Parts: sequence; C-alpha cells; structure tokens
Amino acid sequence: MSDAPIAIFDSGVGGLTVAAAIAKRLPAEHLVYLGDTARLPYGTKSPETVTRYAVQATRALMRFQPKLIVVACNTASAVALPVLTAAYAPVPVLGVVEPGARAAVAASKGGPIAVIATEGTVRGGAYVRAIHALKPGARIVQRACPLFVSLAEEGWTDGPVPELAAERYLDDIFKAADRPDTLVLGCTHFPVLVAPIAKAVGQNVMLVDSAATTAQEVEHLLDTRALRRTGPTKLPTFMGTDAPERFARVGSGFFGRPIATDQVELVDLTP
Amino acid sequence: MSDAPIAIFDSGVGGLTVAAAIAKRLPAEHLVYLGDTARLPYGTKSPETVTRYAVQATRALMRFQPKLIVVACNTASAVALPVLTAAYAPVPVLGVVEPGARAAVAASKGGPIAVIATEGTVRGGAYVRAIHALKPGARIVQRACPLFVSLAEEGWTDGPVPELAAERYLDDIFKAADRPDTLVLGCTHFPVLVAPIAKAVGQNVMLVDSAATTAQEVEHLLDTRALRRTGPTKLPTFMGTDAPERFARVGSGFFGRPIATDQVELVDLTP
Repeated sequence: MSDAPIAIFDSGVGGLTVAAAIAKRLPAEHLVYLGDTARLPYGTKSPETVTRYAVQATRALMRFQPKLIVVACNTASAVALPVLTAAYAPVPVLGVVEPGARAAVAASKGGPIAVIATEGTVRGGAYVRAIHALKPGARIVQRACPLFVSLAEEGWTDGPVPELAAERYLDDIFKAADRPDTLVLGCTHFPVLVAPIAKAVGQNVMLVDSAATTAQEVEHLLDTRALRRTGPTKLPTFMGTDAPERFARVGSGFFGRPIATDQVELVDLTP
Repeated sequence: MSDAPIAIFDSGVGGLTVAAAIAKRLPAEHLVYLGDTARLPYGTKSPETVTRYAVQATRALMRFQPKLIVVACNTASAVALPVLTAAYAPVPVLGVVEPGARAAVAASKGGPIAVIATEGTVRGGAYVRAIHALKPGARIVQRACPLFVSLAEEGWTDGPVPELAAERYLDDIFKAADRPDTLVLGCTHFPVLVAPIAKAVGQNVMLVDSAATTAQEVEHLLDTRALRRTGPTKLPTFMGTDAPERFARVGSGFFGRPIATDQVELVDLTP
C-alpha cells in the first residue's frame, strides 16, 4: 500500500504548486496529477457544479488505487470535501483550505487576516470557518481576485499589469487603519504572483499559501499510517481533460520544472 | 415559422454583445440566448472539445424550434460551424467570423489587418482564411489576448489595468513600420474594452467587431426567406449552464440592458 501513488487534482494547472511542494518534501512519492483543464476555472462556478466535477475527477483518479487524495484546488476544497470524503472512504481526502488556515493563524500576530481567493471560495466562506475554528474571534477580511487566475495562466507574473491589478484589488484593505498583518493566498494560482502582491500590500505583512502546509500535512498523514514510499524514484503522472500542449507549457511554470507535452495524458471525465 | 425564435449561443455572456446588436436591428424578433457558463472559456480549449460543447448547446436550443441559429462565439464559429451546419440542416447556422472578416475588408484601406482573439481562434486561423477568401493577398497579423476576456468579465473596462494590458499585447504590432489600418475584435468579449484598445493602437486605426455585421446578415437572411417576425414584442429568453446570478450581473454589462437573475434559466447540457 505504501507503494501506491498520491492522487492530486485541481481545476487546471494551478494545483501544480501544491504538487511541487509535496514532491519537494516527499521526493520518493509517486504523484498522479489530474487537471480538469476542459472545465476550468472552477472559481466562478456554483457549489453544485464544482462538487459534481470534483466527484468525476476523483473517480478518474481511483483507477490508480491511490493511498491518499489531495484536493489541490481551493474552490473544490471549500465546497466538495465532505462529499469526496464520504464517497471515497477509507481513502483519506485532504484539502488545501485547512492547511492554509493553519498557516495563517500561525503567522498572524493578532491583527486582521486577509484572504484573497476566487469568487466561489470567498462566497462559500470556507476560510472564514476554518480560521475561526482554530482561532475564534479572529478578524478576517476577504476579497475575490478572479483576474489573478488569468494573469497567472498568461504568465504575466511581474511588471505593471499585475502590480496595478494587485493595487486595485488590495489597496483599500491594506491602507485601512486596521491593516491586516497576514495575507492568505487562497487560490493555488496565486503563489506565482507573490512579487506584485507583496509590492501592493507593503511591508510587515506575512504572505502565506497552503502549498507548503499541505505538503507537511501529507507527510504527517503518511507517517502516522506508515504509508511512506521507499521504492526508487518514479516520475509523476500528469493528466488533463483538454489540450496537453497548453497543460505542459503553462503547467511548467507552476510546477517549477519542465513538463513535456507527451508526459500529459488526455482523459475524458464526462460520465 | 416567422414567429419562431432566433437561437443564439456563446460560451458565456460575451455573445450578448451580438444579441444586443440583433435586438437593436430587429426589435420584433424573439431571441433565445444560451451561455455555457459552466464550461467557459472556450478560447483555451481544443477544437474537439469546443465542437462537442457547441453541439450540446445547439441541441438544447433546438427544443425552441428556432428559425435560425447564431453562433455568437468566435472560437465556436471558428472551429464548429461545418459540424453544426451539417447536424442541424435545414435550420441555417450563422457564425460571427465571416461577418467580422467582411467588416474588416470593408474598413481596411489596403494596409495590414490585425486580428485579436482567443488562443483557440488564433490557432485555428479561421479569420485568416475568411479574410483571404474575400481579399486574397491581404496582409494579416494575429494576436491572442486571453486576458481581455477576464478583464471584460471582471468589468475592468477602463483605467490603467486594461490600458497597460492592451499596450502589452498590441504595442509591437502598432509600432511596427507596416502598421495595420484595421483591427478586428475577434472575440465577443472585446467590444466592451474598446476604449483601452483604441488608446493602445493610436489614431487612424479602424476597430471593427462582428456584432453589427452579424445583425445585418441575420436581417438579410430573414428577409430573403420571408422569415421576419411581426408579432408583438417578446422578451428575450436567457439560459445559462451555471450561476444565474453571475450571468445576470455580468451579462447586463454586455447586453447593455439590465438582466434580472430570475430571467435566467439554469440548464444542464451534459448528455
């Protein structure tokens, strides 16, 4: 069982930032990654639609008999985790919202915590619930930043366009008297935009994302269940629901390592 | 038959710019509009996926027994028109690429013609073929501008962010020695960004979009077949595949008239 892969899915290639953090922390693990690129983005869609898509994506990953499923998409983590956990028990399902909330609470020095995410994640309020579960009474301010997703996908991660977009989204929050001391990057696309976001929020703000904390949590879970893989290194398996060439090209930036088009298998999730 | 509706579809709400042009030119017509908002954008997806989605969308519209189908999406027009025309004959199917190409050729004074569109439309080369069919030897330069779609959806249609994005996409084309005299807005989302685009390209460039020319073509087709509707005004019917609230909110900007959430029916296109 310890030789089984870790299955990871996201609406697209943004979740590769989480896959990269897991690969860095647990280099012996075999990762199977599925990006639902034919139906991205999830962030503007209703909870019912996102849940249906997440169930279909997880079903496709089950053919690899994974030891663990990681929902590397904030929107899907925020709305579909209970359904996935019930549907695929006893295989454990980890989301990225709780690890992100934990990282935020650990980083904050008592000031307000700001959360930026997609429309779906913000509307669902999953970060607010997760942070309050860890720290009741914490002050939280949320902002949907859908354009960051497109900027990240376009590879416009520095220069005036992302900087001005970050200002337009964040200026009022970080120029307020009650300025947050922590900012949660509540979408797996956002870590690649860390430079313009940091510039917009100014000094003394901790930027946290869930990639590293999720990888920590994966390690903890494997250790407590004695599920760590020890075999020889196995290259990750990549699957997309559309356009492998685009998956490889755009995904390489998020994964931090080159992905070749012929490494990406095209799969169909429609029932 | 003349009382039957005109069916219009798009990947989302951008096609409402085309619906608005048809409603303006032909106010007596009953319009049935379907936006596949659960699966947008089409512009980053493969021809096979876009064609499959377009067939499913058209099938859903056939229950209204339309007298005419308008594909108000450049990406779908560019790749799926032959399949749709064959599948739904004898109902005529009109796309937006040919009308856009016609408008461009009419506007150009002999200089190069620039086309901005989604990745899918640019890669497929449908505008190049359509312009060359009308004017062999025309010089054409294309540029994919996927971020414009997100800026339009976010409602960021003026100010520094769209202006700098337009510069970044278009500067090299319009600062070249062989400067285009005409720019085709080859995506139904782009007309709402006409101000920043016009600023970026500078003076003496004709900006053309296919909305008005498509409406002209619809009128011509109805007249030649004696299919004009004469009955009392009928409010348009709107359908989306996800999130009616967002359809109404974002769509109102594209349609140029308010759309209420309860005017938008939620439909499921999955087979």
